[in-house]
Amino acid sequence: MHYPKDLEHLISYYAKLPGIGEKSAERLAIATMEFKDEEIKEFSEVLINAKKNLVRCSICGHITDNEICDICRDESRNKNIICVVEDYKNVFAFEKSGKFNGTYHVLNGLISPIDDIGPDDINLNSLVTRVSSLDKPELILALKPTIEGEATTLYIKKILENEKVTISRLAYGIPIGAEIDYLDNVTLEKALEDRKKISD
Amino acid sequence: MHYPKDLEHLISYYAKLPGIGEKSAERLAIATMEFKDEEIKEFSEVLINAKKNLVRCSICGHITDNEICDICRDESRNKNIICVVEDYKNVFAFEKSGKFNGTYHVLNGLISPIDDIGPDDINLNSLVTRVSSLDKPELILALKPTIEGEATTLYIKKILENEKVTISRLAYGIPIGAEIDYLDNVTLEKALEDRKKISD
Repeated sequence: MHYPKDLEHLISYYAKLPGIGEKSAERLAIATMEFKDEEIKEFSEVLINAKKNLVRCSICGHITDNEICDICRDESRNKNIICVVEDYKNVFAFEKSGKFNGTYHVLNGLISPIDDIGPDDINLNSLVTRVSSLDKPELILALKPTIEGEATTLYIKKILENEKVTISRLAYGIPIGAEIDYLDNVTLEKALEDRKKISD
Repeated sequence: MHYPKDLEHLISYYAKLPGIGEKSAERLAIATMEFKDEEIKEFSEVLINAKKNLVRCSICGHITDNEICDICRDESRNKNIICVVEDYKNVFAFEKSGKFNGTYHVLNGLISPIDDIGPDDINLNSLVTRVSSLDKPELILALKPTIEGEATTLYIKKILENEKVTISRLAYGIPIGAEIDYLDNVTLEKALEDRKKISD
């Protein structure tokens, strides 16, 4: 199939996006050609701006278009509860649930000796400073249950040993709606380990 | 859910694309943020360029980045067979099938009295000029079987009455792979009408 060069080029950019195959990319590129000139111009500008204007919040490391993100600036949020996450996408996931009223700390990575990522390569130092500035804070580690997640969890526990801080991690267990038959062994094992008493 | 303003803006652009809902648009926008700076810059430029550089082929009306499109310039294609289509997306569809070796004529619309679109509003005059410059050309009308498609087909037949030209239209019928039980009445009726003799 032979598209004009510029269209081909646009298709290749759409095809870089996750979940967009060659056929969808073609469909999107052709649909883009139906946009009005001003719309194309704005789309093009907003791409540049989104990437350029979004910086890291100087407190928590979340992406923001200000020096301090909306969440850290929000007076109604509990600054003493910090949910530690791997990246800013996790923040969006929690915010969508609407069930968390604390703040976040975005590590922007996990400790991974195999990939040569050590504690200094991720946003950990500022977490220590932050925790020590607070009065009896609570830290919720919301890191994925992989080797890297566990390593990071252990490391955070260790560096905060001497601080007055409550640390918990998210519960592991059966996801809501799942069929127990189809769960993997590790999840079942964790669900058993973390079982919750419901009567005495 | 509260995204930074620029990200929100980018999401709204992705959401304009066909088949991209709010959730997918969010996912695409966030994924775009992972692009490298140069990639974003190029993506942004290619959007502008694709729209700006693509013009209409002066012969057939297909989109092209030249004055004359690749298909019209291709020496190996049969210039005497012209497939008349509603828009350039149809050309891509035919080209993908790889089964047509003639050229195209893109009307860029269909006659539609209801929408106040007359013969002069679509790319019809150049079709007449083109046909009269050829020696016994063949015209294949590949217009959709709607009122507008039929009106355009009839009109083309009429204006070419005095030309030496063979005109056919695409066969109507059962799409390959379809269950006859689920076909609409009109398709069934057309398939019956256009039935093809397979033995004498």
